[in-house]
Order: sequence, then C-alpha cells, then structure tokens
Amino acid sequence: MLNPCDTAFVDRLAGELPDGTLSAPEPRHLEEPRGRWPGQAGVLARPRSTEEVARIVRACGEARVGVVPYSGGTGLVGGQIMPSDGPAPLLLSLERMSALRGVWPEENALVVEAGMILAEVQAEAAKVGRLFPLSLASEGSCRIGGNLAANAGGTAVLRYGNARDLCLGLEAVLPDGTVFNGLTRLRKDNAGYDLRHLLIGSEGTLGVITAASLKLFPQPAARVVALLSVPSPTAALELLALSSTRAAGMVSGFELIHRMGFDFLAESGFDLRAPFDPVPEWLVLLELELPAGLEPEVTMATVYEAGAEAGLVTDGVIATSQAQADAIWALRETIPLANRKVGAVSSHDISLPLSAIPGFIAEAPRAIADLGAFRVNCFGHLGDGNLHWNVFPERGHAKAEHEGVRDEVKRVVHDMVHALGGSVAAEHGVGRLKVADLARYGDPGKLAAMRAIKAALDPVGIMNPGAVLG
Amino acid sequence: MLNPCDTAFVDRLAGELPDGTLSAPEPRHLEEPRGRWPGQAGVLARPRSTEEVARIVRACGEARVGVVPYSGGTGLVGGQIMPSDGPAPLLLSLERMSALRGVWPEENALVVEAGMILAEVQAEAAKVGRLFPLSLASEGSCRIGGNLAANAGGTAVLRYGNARDLCLGLEAVLPDGTVFNGLTRLRKDNAGYDLRHLLIGSEGTLGVITAASLKLFPQPAARVVALLSVPSPTAALELLALSSTRAAGMVSGFELIHRMGFDFLAESGFDLRAPFDPVPEWLVLLELELPAGLEPEVTMATVYEAGAEAGLVTDGVIATSQAQADAIWALRETIPLANRKVGAVSSHDISLPLSAIPGFIAEAPRAIADLGAFRVNCFGHLGDGNLHWNVFPERGHAKAEHEGVRDEVKRVVHDMVHALGGSVAAEHGVGRLKVADLARYGDPGKLAAMRAIKAALDPVGIMNPGAVLG
Repeated sequence: MLNPCDTAFVDRLAGELPDGTLSAPEPRHLEEPRGRWPGQAGVLARPRSTEEVARIVRACGEARVGVVPYSGGTGLVGGQIMPSDGPAPLLLSLERMSALRGVWPEENALVVEAGMILAEVQAEAAKVGRLFPLSLASEGSCRIGGNLAANAGGTAVLRYGNARDLCLGLEAVLPDGTVFNGLTRLRKDNAGYDLRHLLIGSEGTLGVITAASLKLFPQPAARVVALLSVPSPTAALELLALSSTRAAGMVSGFELIHRMGFDFLAESGFDLRAPFDPVPEWLVLLELELPAGLEPEVTMATVYEAGAEAGLVTDGVIATSQAQADAIWALRETIPLANRKVGAVSSHDISLPLSAIPGFIAEAPRAIADLGAFRVNCFGHLGDGNLHWNVFPERGHAKAEHEGVRDEVKRVVHDMVHALGGSVAAEHGVGRLKVADLARYGDPGKLAAMRAIKAALDPVGIMNPGAVLG
Repeated sequence: MLNPCDTAFVDRLAGELPDGTLSAPEPRHLEEPRGRWPGQAGVLARPRSTEEVARIVRACGEARVGVVPYSGGTGLVGGQIMPSDGPAPLLLSLERMSALRGVWPEENALVVEAGMILAEVQAEAAKVGRLFPLSLASEGSCRIGGNLAANAGGTAVLRYGNARDLCLGLEAVLPDGTVFNGLTRLRKDNAGYDLRHLLIGSEGTLGVITAASLKLFPQPAARVVALLSVPSPTAALELLALSSTRAAGMVSGFELIHRMGFDFLAESGFDLRAPFDPVPEWLVLLELELPAGLEPEVTMATVYEAGAEAGLVTDGVIATSQAQADAIWALRETIPLANRKVGAVSSHDISLPLSAIPGFIAEAPRAIADLGAFRVNCFGHLGDGNLHWNVFPERGHAKAEHEGVRDEVKRVVHDMVHALGGSVAAEHGVGRLKVADLARYGDPGKLAAMRAIKAALDPVGIMNPGAVLG
C-alpha cells in the first residue's frame, strides 16, 4: 500500500530540493477538461532538471508515495488526475523543463525537454524550415512529454504516424529513480529492447519522460484542402483508397464529418456554416501535401474528378486560398467544442479496421436505441480508422436525463467495437477512465505481460497509481 | 541453470505433438552466413500451429530447456545459433507456419504467419496491387518472423521505416507459453503498453513471434534511379538534404558507395562495372518514388541539376529503363557478396547521427592504422545514417594474418562510434556477437530495465539463452 504525500514527507523532500521546487497545487492542476473528477495532491513539484526529477522519484519510492506526472493537463481519460479515494500523491509537473536542448536541421532532428508546449515544438521546427507534424486541438497547451506518454494521435497520423512514430529517442526517469539516457538521434539502432516504445503510451505508469529527440520533416511545397460531399461512409472509404492511390504519399488529412456536427455548431452558437445548402449527410475533409512540381488545385481537382466519376463525390469545394483552407479546418476543429456545449451522454474514442466502419456506423445507433432517444455525432480521422462516436440527448433534453443508462450505452458501443476487432482506447489512451475497459477487452496474454512488466519496473507501484492497469 | 534438450525430454515432448513435428536438425539449421559459429541443438521442432508452438514452449519451460527460435537463418550476429559451450537447446523453426491468413487491400493490411519468406510477403502484396516495402539482400530466404524479431532495416528505411514501423500487430508465444493475441489491423490503438514494439527487436529473447499484421502501401506510380558522383561524404549529406527538400516524400533510397566496392567486385570476379571511368571515390545511389503526375526522369534531372549547381554532384547517370535501374541496384547489392569473397578482418554495422558521419569516415581509418595495413570498404544506407564500415586486409594478404588484432580493431571503431553518439548494432541487432558491446556501450539505466523485463517475462531464462543480454 502507498502512503499519503503528507506534510512530514513534503518537509523532508523540500530539504533535498532548491527553494520553490515544491508548492501547493493550483486549482488548474486538479481539474481535467471534462470536469469528470476533482483531483487531489499532497504537493506540487516543479523540478528544473532531470536530476531533480530523479531525486523526487527516488524519495517517493523510499517513502512509498505515489507520483502523478502532470503535463499540459489536457488528457481526456483522467491520466493526470488522482481522485480522492486513495492516498494523496505528489503531483509532478514538468512545466519548468521546457528548453530546446538542440536542433539539427540537416538531420531533421530536434531535442526538447518534456515540458515544452506542442505548438512551441512546431514553432522551433518552423524556425529552421522544418515541419514537426504532430497536430491536435489542444496543441496550444498540451506538452510534448504528455503527448508522448499518451502516444497522442491527431490530424496528421495518416501521413506521419502517431506521436510514437515521431520520436527518435527519450530521456526518462524510471520508477526507481534511475535515469534512462536514450536521447539518440539515430534512425536505426537495434542495440537491445526498445524502451522508448515501451514508455511511449504507458501514460506515466512506467516512468517520467523528461526529454525527447524528435523527427522533423521537410515542409511540403504546398497544401491543398477540399470539403467533399460523399453519399455514404462506404463511399468515403472508397474515396480514401482512390485518393491514396492517385495522390500516393500526399494524403495528409482525411476526416469524416456527419451533418450532426453542423447542427451542433449552430445549436451552440458558433458562427460557422458548411459551404453547402442543404448540408449533405456525410462530408469528407481531404488534405493533400504536395512536393514541388505539382499544382495544388490541379492535383486536388484530379482526385475530385476521379471521385466524382466513380460516384464517390457528389459535390465539393476546393480551397483556393489559405483563408479558405483555414475556414474548412475550423469547421472540423470546432465540432469538439460544440459537442462539449451540447453535452454528451457518452463519448467514444474508438478505432476499427477500415472495412468494419460502414457496418458499425449503420448498426451502432440501432444497438443503443432501446436505451433512450439519442442523437449521435460521428466524426473523426477516417483515414486512421479512428472515429469519435459520441452520443447526445435529443434537442431540448439534458444529458442528466440519461445518467442512469450512460454506463450501459458505453458498454453496448464498446462491446460492438471489440467484436469488430476495434479498440475502445484509440487515441486518448486508458488513463483512469478506461481501466475497466482494458481489463474487459484486453487480451489476457497481453494484460499478464503488462502486469509483469509493471511489477518488475515499479514493484512498489508509485508511478501514476491507478492509471492504465488500475 | 538450464537443462540440455536430451533424448528423454525429446521423447516426452514427441508424445504431446503430431508425428513429424520433431526431427534431427539439418546442417543448414546449425550454420550461419559468416561461418563464425557451429551451432548445436538437441532437436529441431517444426510446429504447424500457434497452439503447437505454445505447447513446445510450455514444455521447455517446465523442463528448463532453452528454446532458440530459428527463422530464415540469415542473421549476421548469431541470434539463431547456440554455440556448443552450454546445454543443447530445442531449435524452433517456424518454416511450416508460412500461411497467408488474410489480406485487406482496402485497408492496406495483410496478416501472415511468421514463417513466410519475405519475398513471398512482397509478392502477396503485389498480387493485390500493393507494396510491402521491407527489402533487403536476403529477402529470398529470410522469413518475416525473423525480420520482425530482429527489426530488420534494409534499403527502404528512409521512406518506409524499419521493420517495426511496418507492423500493425503481432501474435506471439510468450516464455510461459501464453499466447499474445495482438493481430490488430488498427492504425491507432492506445489500449495499454505496446507489447508489439517490445517483442520487435528483442531477437527471440522475450517470446516467439508466430504471425504478424503488416502495413501495405500503394504502389508508387513510377520509380527512378540515378548513380551520382559526389566530391565527398559531406557533399553526399548535403545532397541528401537537398533531395529530401526538392523531392519531399519521394526519396526512397540514398546509398553511399565508396570506390573500394568496385575494386572488390572486380577482385572477386563479378562482372559488374561502374558506369564511370575512372571510378570516382564516392558515389550516391539515389532512388525516387513518384506519385502520378510527375515525370520520373524530369524530376530526377531537377534534383541532379540543383545538386550540380550547388557543387554537390560532379557527374552521374540517370537510368532510363527498368533494366538500367536494376543494373545500378545490382552494383550496390553485390558489394556485400564481394566483401564476403574478399574476407573481412572486421565488419561494422554502425549508425551515426548524420552530421557526425563525414568526421567518422575521415578519422576512423587513421584510428586503426596503427593496428595493421588495412583496406576499408565503406558503403551503406546513408539516408538512415547506417554505414557498413568493413575492414579488409590489403590485396594479396589474408584476413587470418590480422586475426590477433581483430578484437582491437572492432573495439577502436566501436569506441569511436559510441563517442559520436552512434550505435554499434544498427540494423543487424545484437544476437550473440555483440553481447559484450551492448554491456559496454548500453545505457546502464536501459540495461537494468531490460534485465528486469527479461526476468519478469522469462524467469527461467529459456528464450534464446545467451542472446542480447548474454
């Protein structure tokens, strides 16, 4: 059992650290974006160096005090929040470790500390004429250490991969306070087990990422965006295949948007409208990144026309300026904000094998129909098989009316996803929200191996207690 | 301590398996390509199903008998060979598990059993109009399970990544005989630790890969190859940066070749000549993969001319037919065969941060000059920072004359690579050859974590004993 992070421990630890490293947590450190849990912490530690992180983790291990790593606080599954039903942990924020350690444009590599805000990582890359492609709605406040701990996804996965695919190396403090020095800039290194990939996606339960070596890319010569009306999700998938062939290596965004998203934008007072009247039931946002030598609008028009000829596109607009492209992306990116204003009964961050998606979209609303009268807003990164399939009350009703069936809605949807070979924790991770889901749907062989690894690296169980494995 | 795989154990195990599963190993199973070690095995097991693999591993665990997984036998670091200084293991070949379990062209995914030969995986992808890009010299005999266990590299890493980057999911038998069912076809799945990436590159020491879900890609509309003369390794690196910008997302091969490679081709009787007279000291093989809409030779000519203008290319040929392209690749791919005929004193599979490469190429020959009169053949995947930097006797001398300094040559080269932030096990892995290197150069924090993970998943130590961690 763990001990609480009490004043005696805090006083002792304070003596080992520079003044001002420890303080009372601010309210923002104990909240999470959906207001699901209030958090608790005995103290907030904001170290300035990897060595200080190591000292803190070691002290917590000796005193059997839990450590909750806190990055940008934008996680949606409660990985950064310790609810009040256990001993108070130490909350470890990396916000003071946000330095650029080095940039090597000729190597397409950059090394940053874990506390750097994602948008700043992107900006550092842009300064040397390079692209760091990880991009998600919270990029202005999330931090790269948290992005890696959670293996963040976002809108550029189709072309550039998830956060783990953008990482060349890591520095991390392991649960016993040992520093893992793995900040390599190598593209090929088969010297032993890949600790980097084990730590990425482990959500702070196997150690604290303190710095990362990241991959950069050349800036594309041009980008072009279109918003296309498609007759069905099946047509959208066929259009994905068609565009991936016609514009091989260039498809950088392929987002599916249901009309409900536009209803929600209007309903929640956002002044954003689809450039179609009436709004078609299904839209696809298609983005291409082009190398030099190809004309953006011509290339997009080729895909558009091929899609139209095949009956996969019935209408559409191609942005002819950056402002138009931004406006199209703004539609997609504001939908999650509208969702929050409408208030979901249940949100599902799911992924499916691509070929299972049309069937899921058709069947899932029927599967929950017995549980109440709902509206479904289905949108997301179709190119990655990742849907945000969210369930809302009907207009004029409140989500509170469905509180009693929320768990059952979730269960029905997740059971269906699992049966189709999908994941119920696609890009947001497990955190504390989906511990029971992981236990229910996870492969028993994998779960046993995970528990063995956790026990081996963190026998006392101090690292982010209660997250992932519960 | 482990027990030998003796006749009593073999007889008992035979009773649990279908007839013909166990047999005496053939000589080919106890050899490795460089003839460095003779292998030993108490028996050869060739199971036909994952369930049989699990039964074998479980029986070995109970009897404390070592299991050496044997794939295509092409590994260059002895991972597939148990030398005769310990108890004889069971040799586990997956050659009878080579089925295609399924292919989903619309998902760009395919599931194969671990024993499928790499060239057959490529062929299965081609049958449905897709590309499986993993490509290496031994693709006609290596098997995909071994490629993944060793995280193979090859010539397409620059564009498509290493073997691990091409894998969506795995099925594997863990050391306790548990089956890890992870054959997902998902592009995003953050449900727990990434066991897939832990098993990939662990060289059979944490389990036996039995099947894999693999990523496919659209076939590029066209490929174009050029052989370019460059004034220096520094110029080659600048040309890499230039071509990665001018032909963003299209550079699929960037191989550095030293003139010594051509000397060796002639010396060992291969009828292959460079299309230059005299042969320049440094050549770059540049390959681009193009989407539809770009003219291959025009695109390559653009890069060539920009390189020439910048003083980075002094001469060159652009292949104008598939036959010419094949001939250029044949030069590069035959050099390793010539090397084997000449006979290396010491071969080094190293990777370096790109910016450290010119300094290494300049300094390393001086560093070993005191140890003897050598010729160096330096070639490899410059785009990945991965060089094959191999040391040979002078013409008319035999490698045996340098036997006494081989270890010192290796040590000097590896020390230099390590000091420059490189890896001494870039794409061939650790196997048994580089156990001491890993112990010497590996980060202590990483090594301790590796040992903890190994002990947790394989407490008896039956899986590929002696490999990687020794």
